[in-house]
Amino acid sequence: MLWKILKGDGEKFIELLRRNVFFLFAIGNTKTAEIPGITVAGANPDLIKFTPPADVELLHYGECKVIPFPPATPDGKPTPAIITYTALRLTNVPFLAVDCGLMIKPRAPYICINAPVGENIAEKDAMNLNAVKDAFNNAFELGRRLSKAVDLIIVGESIPAGTTTALAVLRALGINTMVSSSMPSNPVELKERVVTKALERVKGEEDPLELISKVGDPVMVGVCGIALGSEKPVLLAGGTQMVAIASLIERMGEADIAIATTVYVANDSDALNHAPCPVIVVDPGLADSRKAGLRAYAEGFVKEGVGAGGATLLAYARGFGKDEFLKEIEHSYETVIESRL
Amino acid sequence: MLWKILKGDGEKFIELLRRNVFFLFAIGNTKTAEIPGITVAGANPDLIKFTPPADVELLHYGECKVIPFPPATPDGKPTPAIITYTALRLTNVPFLAVDCGLMIKPRAPYICINAPVGENIAEKDAMNLNAVKDAFNNAFELGRRLSKAVDLIIVGESIPAGTTTALAVLRALGINTMVSSSMPSNPVELKERVVTKALERVKGEEDPLELISKVGDPVMVGVCGIALGSEKPVLLAGGTQMVAIASLIERMGEADIAIATTVYVANDSDALNHAPCPVIVVDPGLADSRKAGLRAYAEGFVKEGVGAGGATLLAYARGFGKDEFLKEIEHSYETVIESRL
Repeated sequence: MLWKILKGDGEKFIELLRRNVFFLFAIGNTKTAEIPGITVAGANPDLIKFTPPADVELLHYGECKVIPFPPATPDGKPTPAIITYTALRLTNVPFLAVDCGLMIKPRAPYICINAPVGENIAEKDAMNLNAVKDAFNNAFELGRRLSKAVDLIIVGESIPAGTTTALAVLRALGINTMVSSSMPSNPVELKERVVTKALERVKGEEDPLELISKVGDPVMVGVCGIALGSEKPVLLAGGTQMVAIASLIERMGEADIAIATTVYVANDSDALNHAPCPVIVVDPGLADSRKAGLRAYAEGFVKEGVGAGGATLLAYARGFGKDEFLKEIEHSYETVIESRL
Repeated sequence: MLWKILKGDGEKFIELLRRNVFFLFAIGNTKTAEIPGITVAGANPDLIKFTPPADVELLHYGECKVIPFPPATPDGKPTPAIITYTALRLTNVPFLAVDCGLMIKPRAPYICINAPVGENIAEKDAMNLNAVKDAFNNAFELGRRLSKAVDLIIVGESIPAGTTTALAVLRALGINTMVSSSMPSNPVELKERVVTKALERVKGEEDPLELISKVGDPVMVGVCGIALGSEKPVLLAGGTQMVAIASLIERMGEADIAIATTVYVANDSDALNHAPCPVIVVDPGLADSRKAGLRAYAEGFVKEGVGAGGATLLAYARGFGKDEFLKEIEHSYETVIESRL
């Protein structure tokens, strides 16, 4: 089985993936990632802020420019952008990044929606509410205009510590679940501590944009705006972060959305069951990889990010088989990662 | 006759306009516009720098945000964005602006290619060569990726004093012609004086990007990059500025381009004859308008800009008649301009 529809009418989205699609990558930063131990989305703490732009450079060029090596965890597990890069290379699908509050800009073209960098939600409100509204309106208009050109928009994300802000939003919305993690041992207690402090500022009467401005992150602003502005269906390519975003979207208006993510996330968290939209789970087959750095995904590391699950689904929907796709991921791994070691 | 093919295989582009197209607007600033008397692209000199972002806001929302009124000449002739806005409203074609060196950013989504603001070419080099190369590479990648989603990219421009930098480039390339002007009495002597000073810095051995960095402007960088990166045909929607850009593109590589502009430009300058590509001239029919502000276009004011000629051609190619289109422009004029008087 290449993919499994966990809930809802996912078949429609499989069909749409074969038509004219555009892949957007909502990338940004939250200073929540500066809390020691909260994320491994960077080889060391100083490099975390470079991960989102470097991911996008990898998608464009097969190499990074703002840092000399592709993003990796401190113990060398490579960024999931390697999977997305492979799918984009095979399918030739058009894509662009959307700057949702970046500290460092990519050396590539990208779309600006004037989103602010997110603050550390353990310490203060994530963003100014007026700035959130402004960025949301720009993202809405982006979704509206771009959707006229295509049949489906796919949106991936890259924001270190994004699962922690997602947890805060889910809890604030009254959804009692635990989010996934890029580590095999999810730092649950640390995330809970951060979220508890963040939720002290929530009164319970906030509308979704106010809630994001208090305990969310700028990627949420961008993805919500794009999905609500789009006149066509939108596939949210991501794990538990996209469950939080889908829950926000549901409270804000009408949008034809679904979530696509990896089995590694589905095995790690029950949050997908709380999604208010169809959920499609896909297996990139990395458990069978000859490369230890890729097998690690099936052993609980990284799991998802940069739209890797949705990108895998895109490749499968367009006829690439599981073995064939895995071989191509391994080929990418050799050219992008190993050739630089 | 709705349009006239001045030279080359323009029919192909008419056919492409009926398919899946995306309209980009390359907008930017050159400090050359600060030379008194060189441009009327703003109600007063302090407002000139707001014209490009305000034009794009008008396209998105039918109103401007960075300034309270739509851009106009000092004597009240409205921006040609009013024509483009009308065509986009009727055809529902997707579009986005590309920031090619803006002083003021629009309150709308836009694509960033990291282009610098252009300096006053009478005084110094327009831009740092490395910055030009960087922005060109980003624009190239943008053209490449976006072209995968569509059959044709149309590129319009908005950059006050852009005809002066265009003249400098044409002269540097050895093309002896005079550019058009947004005024009935083209300030030819002033433009010649500026261009003569700029050309003192040109040795004659520069490659196209070096030439742009010395005497051009950042919009040229963006449009050249997009056109050369695109894997599909590109329609340059603009007047004599696009002749300069097409001449640069021809010297840089292979690109399947054509120029579409208004009869008002064709009547004002012989520069179109020097274009190294097909040229299509279109009549927006403003000579017959009930509105004096629009009739002025046929009397030598404004003439072109923000892709107005290409946008008119788009509307005509998609079946809108000349009278019908004029009525719709007048309707836009009433809602966008007159309602605010």
